[in-house]
Amino acid sequence: MSHSKTAAELAAHVNGQLTGAGDTPIERVADLENAVAGEIAYVDNEKFFDLASNSDASCLLVPEGVAAKLGQNHPATIEVAHPKLAFSLIAEILHPPLRREPAIHETAVVATTADVALSAYLGPHVCVGEYARIGVNTRIEAGTVLGANVTIGADCVLHPNVVLYDGVSIGNGVILHAGVCIGADGFGYVRDRMGYYKFPQIGTVVIEDEVEIGAHTCIDRAALGRTRIGRGTKLDNMVHVGHNCDIGERVVIAAQTGISGSVTIEDDAVIGGQVGFGDHTRVQKGAIIGSKAGILPGKIVRPGVWWGIPVQPLDEYKRMNAHLGRLPQMRQEIKELKKALEEVRARLPQK
Amino acid sequence: MSHSKTAAELAAHVNGQLTGAGDTPIERVADLENAVAGEIAYVDNEKFFDLASNSDASCLLVPEGVAAKLGQNHPATIEVAHPKLAFSLIAEILHPPLRREPAIHETAVVATTADVALSAYLGPHVCVGEYARIGVNTRIEAGTVLGANVTIGADCVLHPNVVLYDGVSIGNGVILHAGVCIGADGFGYVRDRMGYYKFPQIGTVVIEDEVEIGAHTCIDRAALGRTRIGRGTKLDNMVHVGHNCDIGERVVIAAQTGISGSVTIEDDAVIGGQVGFGDHTRVQKGAIIGSKAGILPGKIVRPGVWWGIPVQPLDEYKRMNAHLGRLPQMRQEIKELKKALEEVRARLPQK
Amino acid sequence: MSHSKTAAELAAHVNGQLTGAGDTPIERVADLENAVAGEIAYVDNEKFFDLASNSDASCLLVPEGVAAKLGQNHPATIEVAHPKLAFSLIAEILHPPLRREPAIHETAVVATTADVALSAYLGPHVCVGEYARIGVNTRIEAGTVLGANVTIGADCVLHPNVVLYDGVSIGNGVILHAGVCIGADGFGYVRDRMGYYKFPQIGTVVIEDEVEIGAHTCIDRAALGRTRIGRGTKLDNMVHVGHNCDIGERVVIAAQTGISGSVTIEDDAVIGGQVGFGDHTRVQKGAIIGSKAGILPGKIVRPGVWWGIPVQPLDEYKRMNAHLGRLPQMRQEIKELKKALEEVRARLPQK
Repeated sequence: MSHSKTAAELAAHVNGQLTGAGDTPIERVADLENAVAGEIAYVDNEKFFDLASNSDASCLLVPEGVAAKLGQNHPATIEVAHPKLAFSLIAEILHPPLRREPAIHETAVVATTADVALSAYLGPHVCVGEYARIGVNTRIEAGTVLGANVTIGADCVLHPNVVLYDGVSIGNGVILHAGVCIGADGFGYVRDRMGYYKFPQIGTVVIEDEVEIGAHTCIDRAALGRTRIGRGTKLDNMVHVGHNCDIGERVVIAAQTGISGSVTIEDDAVIGGQVGFGDHTRVQKGAIIGSKAGILPGKIVRPGVWWGIPVQPLDEYKRMNAHLGRLPQMRQEIKELKKALEEVRARLPQK
Repeated sequence: MSHSKTAAELAAHVNGQLTGAGDTPIERVADLENAVAGEIAYVDNEKFFDLASNSDASCLLVPEGVAAKLGQNHPATIEVAHPKLAFSLIAEILHPPLRREPAIHETAVVATTADVALSAYLGPHVCVGEYARIGVNTRIEAGTVLGANVTIGADCVLHPNVVLYDGVSIGNGVILHAGVCIGADGFGYVRDRMGYYKFPQIGTVVIEDEVEIGAHTCIDRAALGRTRIGRGTKLDNMVHVGHNCDIGERVVIAAQTGISGSVTIEDDAVIGGQVGFGDHTRVQKGAIIGSKAGILPGKIVRPGVWWGIPVQPLDEYKRMNAHLGRLPQMRQEIKELKKALEEVRARLPQK
Repeated sequence: MSHSKTAAELAAHVNGQLTGAGDTPIERVADLENAVAGEIAYVDNEKFFDLASNSDASCLLVPEGVAAKLGQNHPATIEVAHPKLAFSLIAEILHPPLRREPAIHETAVVATTADVALSAYLGPHVCVGEYARIGVNTRIEAGTVLGANVTIGADCVLHPNVVLYDGVSIGNGVILHAGVCIGADGFGYVRDRMGYYKFPQIGTVVIEDEVEIGAHTCIDRAALGRTRIGRGTKLDNMVHVGHNCDIGERVVIAAQTGISGSVTIEDDAVIGGQVGFGDHTRVQKGAIIGSKAGILPGKIVRPGVWWGIPVQPLDEYKRMNAHLGRLPQMRQEIKELKKALEEVRARLPQK
């Protein structure tokens, strides 16, 4: 299933400036080092210009103004403002995501009250609960289970063995990787002298458009109300999102980060991996939190770069680490001061 | 599926003192802020008394002695010793957990030697291994796989895509959320000059009554003997429990905590999220361990509150942090001491 | 299904020196404390010699030269160079892994273009994609989903609900525990002012021979190129391996460790649990990294033992901790120095 294009077609697609043979056929994207004839690669860092010059790619995507410098060995070169972005857009054409013919596999179990678009695909052993709704061109792979009253928009991909509990709502263009679990009960109990009683977990989860969620990430339903993942947000693998969290738009969260209940993360925040959030924390718009950071319950994280356990501004974290590094020297200085003081004392006039 | 009750019925259920109209119909629980007519909310903190006064809830659950203060705007008010607990008990009535008609779905694959209670529900594509036993009123959702000789008690709920390996034993009233995995091989190898040989992982796992386990949590089988989760214990999402662990009764463990092999956690301990336990540690009855703590192998954690990596009593942790905060000042003091000493030295009588 | 052997047969199997009755029948392995008649246990640590002497095991595996000391209470004793290894080898005979009769379950969905060995087993609701290949004696349990062009070698075990995305390649003798996910898209985006675009994730994953992967571990496909897990490597539960990682041979990685993209871990490294690796780090051959460590992006970890966040040699980490422990004393010393200096100053001759 080749989706071959010419260099000229690709240049036009990314609004780039072509140098060389516009009819060069391009079949795949590749990295500079491994690219061969028929492939397109990109370079956006001066450090790699030599590697680019020697690449066997048939076509190079390069920053504006550098084609002349790099392109002689390549049949074609395309100058663009943002080569990595252009590379991504070209990859979408050369390697389009899998499309499946509309179908409901004969082993799928679909409630008679469910509303499945005619253009949707339901793979083997998929289950669709009562009153669920599945939008146009959505693809649901084998073994995925949708509870009652689940709503899924158009153009979504649900990979195998995803589980959506009852009432969960998914927007358009959402990608859920294998094993994602959305809508399980939040972790809330009331302690009595006899033990723990379950606090009600009867809210829901709303996933907005263009969200992508990594394999095995779990997003709990709200106790009351809703848990939300905003438009265009991307979660990596094995992230935990507790009940009643509100994650904004275009937020990025790396793998294995854990978010306790009732946390708010505002738009455009960037969160590293293995970060831990105490409950009721708030991360303000555009804040950046380094991997493995820990945020105490109720904390407000302002814009800027944050680091450490508990989290502090990166500058302070670095300063503190510098101080720590000088501890051995400080001990030595105290020792010397003591000795010097003894010497001074010995030279004092007698009382 | 309304389960409407009157305020008087709910007051009786939680043994509370009703003020106002006993025939007020109540259909749902809600929080103070979002509650509307037909809903009941609770307040147990003076901070929220104003919010409670202005809530549109038809009925309020309040601490004893405060109804007069808060209730005028509400058709009904119920005084109870523990409003949050009463709220949870009322939620169970108004929002009872899903019940399914007893059935074995036609796509389920059940070994002929399995013993399934007539009142049990087995959903689509469920698999039940040889000699497995499933108790009365237990509900097993789609895609869940039970190995040979698995035993499950009465009144359990297994959500979709759970996996129980051969021989695992589950008590009564247990809830396993989606993707839970119980009984996989523990992580044990013997190193030889050639590489790693598998140490036998032929023990089992016992989950006692009233345990709830969050989505994607993994509990490994014992190498020899058994791994145990005690009665009434609650585990959050993506917790890892290694082989041969013994977790007591009414223990609470938050998300993404990892427990190495042969760890003992005694009754009533409370463990935060992303905590890591080295092997052969023991947590004594009632100890509380803060999120992200790290416990070195073999350590005994006594009752009290613990924090940090490696874990230390919270008081010491705070004291240490206070010392760290004073490091810049200490450096400054050392500098000044040096300077002052020089001045003193200059003023000494010549030898 | 007893696989009973005599003590003499077992001694021969591990090339050990038998003392006592060679015809003693042995049916199971057990630990020293719980062993009963018909069972074999091992001891390799002097601390447990008393426990061993009093064990009810019918046969003991002991280090060379200590049988006389321990064996009198036991029908048989076997001396070997490495008792724990011998014990593991004997467990393989007495408790052989489950074998299933070759079969394709009637509920499995297998593409007509797939190539499945006649001796393979495909359990209920297994899905096998177009052009997939499954080797001899491989066993694939219920609910596992294999994408198109997946290749699996001989003698593998895939436990229930595993997901292999398109094109993933698995060697011989590989064990994948329940819920393992291999080949999901890596976490790579290009940020534009509008939001995030997906960077292509069109590479693959190669798992070499004799690898074992714990429950729910996720290994992402390469963006371009491949992600690799080397021969004989063992991963625990819920490990995250990002795109384009290269993990060498005989590497051991404990539970919940997270590895960012493009990390290289060379042969024979040992990695603790909950460790976090920044992207493009390299761990050199044989390095040992303690649990909960954090490695900054681009860092090279040389051979030796490493600890802490950020990671440092264990010696330095311990020294730093010792310095930290002395902080209160240092403050006290500074205070005393100040006071002593005041006293000295008071005794100086007037200017």
